[in-house]
Amino acid sequence: MSTRTELERFSINQMTVRQLSLPELADACGRLGIGQVGLWREPVQSYGLAKSAKLVRDAGLTVTTLCRGGFLTATDPDERAAALADNRRAVDEAAALGTDTLVLVSGGLPPGARDLRAARGRIADALTELAPYAGEHGVRLAIEPLHPMYASDRCVVSTLAQALDLAERFPAHQVGVAVDTYHVWWDDQAPAQIARAGTAGRIHTFQLADWTTPLPEGVLNGRGQIGDGVIDMREWRTHVESAGYTGPIEVELFNETLWAGDGHAVLAETARRFVAHVIRRT
Amino acid sequence: MSTRTELERFSINQMTVRQLSLPELADACGRLGIGQVGLWREPVQSYGLAKSAKLVRDAGLTVTTLCRGGFLTATDPDERAAALADNRRAVDEAAALGTDTLVLVSGGLPPGARDLRAARGRIADALTELAPYAGEHGVRLAIEPLHPMYASDRCVVSTLAQALDLAERFPAHQVGVAVDTYHVWWDDQAPAQIARAGTAGRIHTFQLADWTTPLPEGVLNGRGQIGDGVIDMREWRTHVESAGYTGPIEVELFNETLWAGDGHAVLAETARRFVAHVIRRT
Repeated sequence: MSTRTELERFSINQMTVRQLSLPELADACGRLGIGQVGLWREPVQSYGLAKSAKLVRDAGLTVTTLCRGGFLTATDPDERAAALADNRRAVDEAAALGTDTLVLVSGGLPPGARDLRAARGRIADALTELAPYAGEHGVRLAIEPLHPMYASDRCVVSTLAQALDLAERFPAHQVGVAVDTYHVWWDDQAPAQIARAGTAGRIHTFQLADWTTPLPEGVLNGRGQIGDGVIDMREWRTHVESAGYTGPIEVELFNETLWAGDGHAVLAETARRFVAHVIRRT
Repeated sequence: MSTRTELERFSINQMTVRQLSLPELADACGRLGIGQVGLWREPVQSYGLAKSAKLVRDAGLTVTTLCRGGFLTATDPDERAAALADNRRAVDEAAALGTDTLVLVSGGLPPGARDLRAARGRIADALTELAPYAGEHGVRLAIEPLHPMYASDRCVVSTLAQALDLAERFPAHQVGVAVDTYHVWWDDQAPAQIARAGTAGRIHTFQLADWTTPLPEGVLNGRGQIGDGVIDMREWRTHVESAGYTGPIEVELFNETLWAGDGHAVLAETARRFVAHVIRRT
């Protein structure tokens, strides 16, 4: 059994147990001694923003992140304006939920485009508008580099180095990065980039998923349960902590097998795995 | 219709049209004016090494590469010895076929292992034995970095930078790298690494496949036909040529849809795509 102290750093990302409604999740967290959750915009919107904010507040839960804004690579002016407006709404929602961190997934190449660098340039432009807006609302934007296998269709920012090149144009309290083990574990430059981010106070969230193979079709829902794959979680925890990060550690799994299971059991097991593979010394 | 001059640089990797037997491939190349092929060990072995060598020689075909050696990450001493012996055989086969280039895919993490760096160290150790052997036989080893999505189960060498760190321990006529657009297209460091490789004469082969999504389950057989995806082929051709590479350009596609088609038609279409997307100016 995990103790409350062992779960102090743990945050459960809502997507890991998306089969649970928000009230079910809040209730289950209470019973397991879990004090932190990462939320997603869609389930929050369908439950109602104000109602969601009240629910987590009443349950004594801290909202560690809101996922997610971004998708800022469109070239079409109308699409671009719509994306910026949607990201301002995401900042408002984060503020209403009481979280200080909005995770950004940058977006992929627009149809027919082949220029990753130009797409990254459009993200930089968009941040020029969004970063001050976020700062005024007490929300930090966390640029999340996604694994290079998503570079064309989901996120043209593939490495922490690229994410930091974007983030460093703005104050750290406006823009930083999300470090997610699933996306960076393969990258021998990542430890140095984590140090670079930490020194500047730009590690705005630390998320975990394990790397398991074979990858499923579309490679989206193969994020492995902690301990099932090849990632040394303690090593990555050491990297972010050596860089000065002392914040929550969020477990975010997209996994069809876990989603098909009982949400309460998956949550309990995820907490147990977190303690066994991230917290306790071997 | 493509002219013979436009196909001068083109080499067809045997795997692209694996539905063709070696004699069918040689015959089809003759009729289409294709003078170069990249071969694979398994089909060569099943047709017979000496017979294959005679066939390509009689057909006037140049063998640009042999795929592949490698898989050098085992920790078990017996597995390790077997891998080294198999790689020496691969060098012998390359020499017998008259090609100067053996492509190496490094291998993934052994079962239960989580240490990419240690696995790369074992590759370096193995190369210390294999590189002189290859050099003595007039064969250059081409370390191929594979896309990071293969880092755990197929190839712990994920970037050109890592491949060059390994290659540069040896003379360029013994060890260099394979530049494959499918594996490096996402990497903003790749152009600089191509320059680093070219200056030292270490670009031992240049291979093409396009990046298309969604990726199939297992992510192995999704290498897209040239022009179907997001990779700017002319840009990558410019990168390698600016680095001094003037050798063959090999198209290597693993693609279930292409394999299900008529091999002669796929070969003709691949040559046409090569000319349209790699050779002709827009």
